[in-house]
Amino acid sequence: MSLVVMKFGGSSLANPDKIKHVAEKIVIKKRNNNRVIAVVSAPGDTTDDLIKMAYEINCNPPLREMDMLLATGEMISVSLLAMAIYSMGERVISMTGSQAGIMANKDYTRARIKKINPKKINDQLAKDNIVIVAGFQALNPIGDITTLGRGGSDLTAVALAAALESDLCEIYSDVDGIYTTDPRVVEDAKKIDYISYDEMLEMASSGSQVLQSRSVEVAKKFNVEIHSRSTFSENEGTIITSEEKIKGKKMESFLISGISFDKSQVKFTISALNVPGIVAEIFSLFYGVGISIDMFNQSVSNKSNIISFVVNRSDMNKTQEELNKITLNCEASISCDEYVAKVSIIGVGVKSHNIVAAKMFEILRKSGIGISMISISEIRISCIINESDVVKAVEELHKGFGLSKK
Amino acid sequence: MSLVVMKFGGSSLANPDKIKHVAEKIVIKKRNNNRVIAVVSAPGDTTDDLIKMAYEINCNPPLREMDMLLATGEMISVSLLAMAIYSMGERVISMTGSQAGIMANKDYTRARIKKINPKKINDQLAKDNIVIVAGFQALNPIGDITTLGRGGSDLTAVALAAALESDLCEIYSDVDGIYTTDPRVVEDAKKIDYISYDEMLEMASSGSQVLQSRSVEVAKKFNVEIHSRSTFSENEGTIITSEEKIKGKKMESFLISGISFDKSQVKFTISALNVPGIVAEIFSLFYGVGISIDMFNQSVSNKSNIISFVVNRSDMNKTQEELNKITLNCEASISCDEYVAKVSIIGVGVKSHNIVAAKMFEILRKSGIGISMISISEIRISCIINESDVVKAVEELHKGFGLSKK
Repeated sequence: MSLVVMKFGGSSLANPDKIKHVAEKIVIKKRNNNRVIAVVSAPGDTTDDLIKMAYEINCNPPLREMDMLLATGEMISVSLLAMAIYSMGERVISMTGSQAGIMANKDYTRARIKKINPKKINDQLAKDNIVIVAGFQALNPIGDITTLGRGGSDLTAVALAAALESDLCEIYSDVDGIYTTDPRVVEDAKKIDYISYDEMLEMASSGSQVLQSRSVEVAKKFNVEIHSRSTFSENEGTIITSEEKIKGKKMESFLISGISFDKSQVKFTISALNVPGIVAEIFSLFYGVGISIDMFNQSVSNKSNIISFVVNRSDMNKTQEELNKITLNCEASISCDEYVAKVSIIGVGVKSHNIVAAKMFEILRKSGIGISMISISEIRISCIINESDVVKAVEELHKGFGLSKK
Repeated sequence: MSLVVMKFGGSSLANPDKIKHVAEKIVIKKRNNNRVIAVVSAPGDTTDDLIKMAYEINCNPPLREMDMLLATGEMISVSLLAMAIYSMGERVISMTGSQAGIMANKDYTRARIKKINPKKINDQLAKDNIVIVAGFQALNPIGDITTLGRGGSDLTAVALAAALESDLCEIYSDVDGIYTTDPRVVEDAKKIDYISYDEMLEMASSGSQVLQSRSVEVAKKFNVEIHSRSTFSENEGTIITSEEKIKGKKMESFLISGISFDKSQVKFTISALNVPGIVAEIFSLFYGVGISIDMFNQSVSNKSNIISFVVNRSDMNKTQEELNKITLNCEASISCDEYVAKVSIIGVGVKSHNIVAAKMFEILRKSGIGISMISISEIRISCIINESDVVKAVEELHKGFGLSKK
């Protein structure tokens, strides 16, 4: 008898019919001789609605209270889903994060899981119960409810799969897996059968929104195999697993697994006299106010210092303010390009094949797309280009690296 | 510095403006040199909405899951109210029933409070925090959430007032206290300044819906003075306290404190041959299926046995079914009168003054109202009359016992 963790997102639980559909999938899994733990998010738009309510009352709500509020969404899901399963004649019990033994640190709204005490879940599984766990929430050392940040239910599912040594962790959503690129942009995008943890991480951090990055990190650390698949079809989705396992499964290896892009970027450029320590100052100030820098370039000559970097568009105004502070006492000009985007190619091929970078730049050049910044990691190459070129760039790269269906 | 428990019902918390208004009342109380614990119900129709959702999914939802679901309503209230108070610059912390140390027995959806462990609340009060506690919910011995039944937030407030030995327990609602009778029926109804626990209990159990009966029982047991008052005015409401205290406050004592009525009643009459044990059988069968009998009469002669009793209208069909079982094997006729109501006069005067009963019957007789059943307790006399006579009966009794404003 296998132990399976199934995770369902909010859009799969948005109304009573959808909840019943999810209940059926869980019951079928159980009847196929599995022990089942289901992890769920808040139904539909509940979390957004609760956040909106909070801001109507306090434009800067205390984080502890925010977590108390948001945790209710998942409690609604677990109880309703348990009721639906119960009406199908199966034994079932719902649990809050706290009841499921998920312990986190004190950081409200973005807590990290410290430990899972699986006793209560194991007891219920031993009684032949299906166990439904509220995702996204945990208990901190002082007995408060904390939440794990956006997409935190994925993390709950993977962490439970690791702690309980489950045989499989299925993450259900409204898409049927990971694609070579966004199928809404490139019609020809292909579903990927297998992808490594590292590739998935790069995909997630460079724009793909199917899985939360932290959950992939934990899956990698504890070697949890994830199956990302659709709630609304029986098709196989994408298996996220270790590179070794994939090598054994794939007949031929592909240089590149996918193309991702991110349009929520703005690029700043500072031209200043060579002021010593200005870079350290930028990083330290930005860290203090929570702005995270994505790509960073500096070219220094005797006389001048040109610094470029990219931040998320939501941080644009804050960034401008901080830069004004820094450049107040030195001669410097700041420019901001709002209309940029990042396009990335991801694949284990990057690290072993120099030709990949050359090929990427050549494809973009041939398409008449200029590159204003480049960053290269082990398995990813990202370029900053004009926002208006994104679709063309993704299409050409997708075709050029042989990812299209044909 | 006094300790005050303030309880606010759902209609006082139905939208952001109302939540802010309640926050202000709490903050003013705090700034008037009090330590404050606020107990709150779920906002507006939340509980009813959640129940409706549950029944859409399972027409017979498991009670444990129902409690998991319903507890979310009060968690929404406590967190939003804490956010509102926080924005007014006061220190505040919200707590679930479990965090507040409210321990109950295992009876899901109608749990009884077994113990309160006030350590966590006391710690927070000592830190000068306003403490906001989710009413209606508790933790049972196996770590599950249980709820205390309809009106359970009143009970939470009174129980906390008792456990923490608070100086005052204020129960806020959308009415400004207890009236001599329902002011929607008798325009002339007067607000009562002081009422004893026993009188309040009789009022609550005979139709008045301002306070939950169990909370009054607990208040009596632990001698907690309740102030029932309006969220939306500054007027003094009604003090519910011991008979002794009231004696000291009132210049003259009134025979009767109030008139209550209940139209949700049906009366059954069984005429049977004198079958031994039929009464025991009725009570035992009804207990088994959860029908509670209100008034009960039996007249026995050598040959016949006439039994009349009153039940709540919601139990009418179930009652009919059970009676059919009983009378299956004996010659008996069952009749049911759907159009009856119970009108009651309540006051400490009943026990010490025989004249009260006589006066009640005389008033009804003069008004041409027939009485079909009578029950008399220490401080209450109830009569079953035709439903169509209720308004007239209440008006005449209200006038006859000198309760009108003029």
